[in-house]
This record gives sequence, structure tokens and C-alpha cells, in this order.
Amino acid sequence: VSVWAIVVAAGEGRRFGSAKQFELIGGETVLDRSVRTAAETADGVVVVLPGTRDVIDWEPPPGIDVALGGETRADSVRSGLAFVPDAAEIVVVHDAARPMASADLFRAVLDAVRAGADGAVPGVTIRDTVKRVQGAVVSATVPREELVAVQTPQAFRADVLRAAHRGEPDATDDAALVEAAGGRVVVVPGEEANIKITVPDDLDAARARAAT
Amino acid sequence: VSVWAIVVAAGEGRRFGSAKQFELIGGETVLDRSVRTAAETADGVVVVLPGTRDVIDWEPPPGIDVALGGETRADSVRSGLAFVPDAAEIVVVHDAARPMASADLFRAVLDAVRAGADGAVPGVTIRDTVKRVQGAVVSATVPREELVAVQTPQAFRADVLRAAHRGEPDATDDAALVEAAGGRVVVVPGEEANIKITVPDDLDAARARAAT
Repeated sequence: VSVWAIVVAAGEGRRFGSAKQFELIGGETVLDRSVRTAAETADGVVVVLPGTRDVIDWEPPPGIDVALGGETRADSVRSGLAFVPDAAEIVVVHDAARPMASADLFRAVLDAVRAGADGAVPGVTIRDTVKRVQGAVVSATVPREELVAVQTPQAFRADVLRAAHRGEPDATDDAALVEAAGGRVVVVPGEEANIKITVPDDLDAARARAAT
Repeated sequence: VSVWAIVVAAGEGRRFGSAKQFELIGGETVLDRSVRTAAETADGVVVVLPGTRDVIDWEPPPGIDVALGGETRADSVRSGLAFVPDAAEIVVVHDAARPMASADLFRAVLDAVRAGADGAVPGVTIRDTVKRVQGAVVSATVPREELVAVQTPQAFRADVLRAAHRGEPDATDDAALVEAAGGRVVVVPGEEANIKITVPDDLDAARARAAT
């Protein structure tokens, strides 16, 4: 089964304050680390870089395709999807800002799709109590056992992912689009270490984890 | 208005692997740091220690009361509540495992209760996409803007908190009991730094933050 990976690095890093994907973790950029892990389990990799940067000074490793991102995350995934060959049967989408995801985690979501799911996402339990709010007032405490916080990499049947992106919908993750299209998405155990680098403290945490 | 704080340190640290409340952050135990911050904004503090430890070798600072915890978190809060004088008008409950909460955060929840709420909790937005699951299958993506992850300190009108604990109910936080009793709980902005120490990595993160 042919597997392609789309690594999305098109964010401007507004909350981070700069282009976080080019920060270093153990001598390697955040982006290179994410691409390297994706390449371990995929037959091809497309990297989606910010379309608004005047100069993109990142040199892709040999054999890695580059696409330019759009306005939203979903637009950027679609830019990457345009580079994925029709022969690809599974597409795995990964946020470059999650450089600590392991190759085993890629394998786990891929295996779940190979086993018959339309999509598979890593999920971790939410440690904090979660409440539903209306304005600033709590309307309910949400039963925690019903909720998972999901990560990337997210794997999908290629035809299902392409169909879900038709009409250029937007969502915070690809699974939401596949769900909206009626696809069956399963959750595999995520990794606590697989944090998303959003603010500089997260980068420090990732560096500390990478060093151990 | 008389304010009392209950600092809950009665957990066994099962996920952590040891009694995390006695680990050091910047030369001070996790518990001492939490108690010190609580004492800055309360007229009295009750610390709830594990009831199952044969020897409790923690020496409370002068003027701090000590209660012994029960089987559940809610039982432990009730043990602390028994030490709170009847004259206390506001009770603030804090998990010792959140040593990075600031005195300003205590003030914010206290102010919200002084302004008329039955309870006030710190809440932060959830960064990850959150999904509702049935077994291992995703049933829905939860609109993120409706959800907050809540922290401690949580402040309550003393009479409301006492009433909510009648009948010895259990819940993951005190606000849930007050909500279940029909109380109006408001959310104030939480602190990203106010992490809960659950696993050893969290302690490293707290130490790194405390050092800056």
C-alpha cells in the first residue's frame, strides 16, 4: 500500500512570535525533525511551507516535495494534497509543530487505516477537568471519559481525504472534515511527549525531552 | 470578608511514582510553594495530607492547620472543610500539585466570588482539537470555543461549598459539585504556567519555569 505524508509547516507562528518551524531541537530544525520521522514510514513526503514568506530559505532533503500554503490550515493541506500522486492509497497529515511524534505513532495510525478505518488519529486523555461555558458562566462539566485531545499524525484513506476536502471546507483538523463527510475515524493511543509547539516554553519542553 | 484556603495534598502520587508534593522546586517543596501562595491571600490555611501515610514528616508553617485526607479528592476537601471556621465567608480550594499558580490568580477567583458568583474557577482554552469518542471511534469534534480546561485555585461562597458537599458526593473538582447543586460558577482567565504536576516531566517543566 502506497503511503504519502503531508507535513504542514505553513503557519506564521503568530503566538510563538517567529517562524517556530525553523527553531533548533538537538541540532535539527523542528521542521527537519518532523519530516525525517514522516519519511521513515511514508513512500513520499510533501512539505507545505508558508506561501507568504518572500524567501523560503529552507532546503528540502533529497526527494521531498515542497508546496506553498494557503490562508487556512485546511487550504495548506489541500496545497499538499495536490502533490500527492493518484496512486497513493493512504495519506498521513502531520503538523510540523509536533516534532516529537515518534515513527511508531505514524505506524499506529497507518495500521489502523490499513485495518479498515477511514481515518485514524492519536488521542490522549485530558488531564484537567473540562467545562462547557456560555460566555463566562459554566454550563456543564463534561464527562472526561468521553473526551480525547487529538494530535497529529492523522492517517486517512486517500480517496476519503480528497473527498472530504472537496468544496474547500475549513476545520481545526483533517479528521473533522472526514467525520463531517460521514467517514469512520478511530482513535489510537497518542503520546504525552508529542506536544505541539505553540509558545516558546513548549520549545524548551521539547528540547528537554529530546535531550533525555 | 474572611477567606480560608484548603490546600489538598492528599494524593498518593500513583502516576508520579512517589509523593510529588514533597519534591523540590527552587529549594522549596511543591507543597510549601502552594501553601505559601495560598497564605498570601487567605486569612487561614488548612493543608490536607495523605491519611494513609504512616508517618507524615512535613512540618506545617506556623498558623497552618493540618487535616488528614480521605479516599477520594472530595473526601479530602471535606476533611479540610471541617477545619474551616464557621465565620469564613469564602473558601478557596487549591491542589498542592499546582505550585505555579500565582497569588494574582487566587485574587482573581476571590474577586469573582466577592462580585456575586457562587464559585469561580480559572480556565484556559484547550489547544488541541477535542473529540468525543464512543469506544475507540470518534463520534464528534467538540467546538473548541465552548470548552475550557479548568485549574485550581477554585473559590466559593463558604455556605454554597458546604451545601454542595452534603451527602458526600464525588467529582473531579469542587466546582462540579457546586454546579450540580445549582450554583453559578464563573470562569476567570487561568494561567498557562499553572500546570498540574502529574508525571516527572511536569516537575521538570515547573522547575524550568520557576528558574526564569
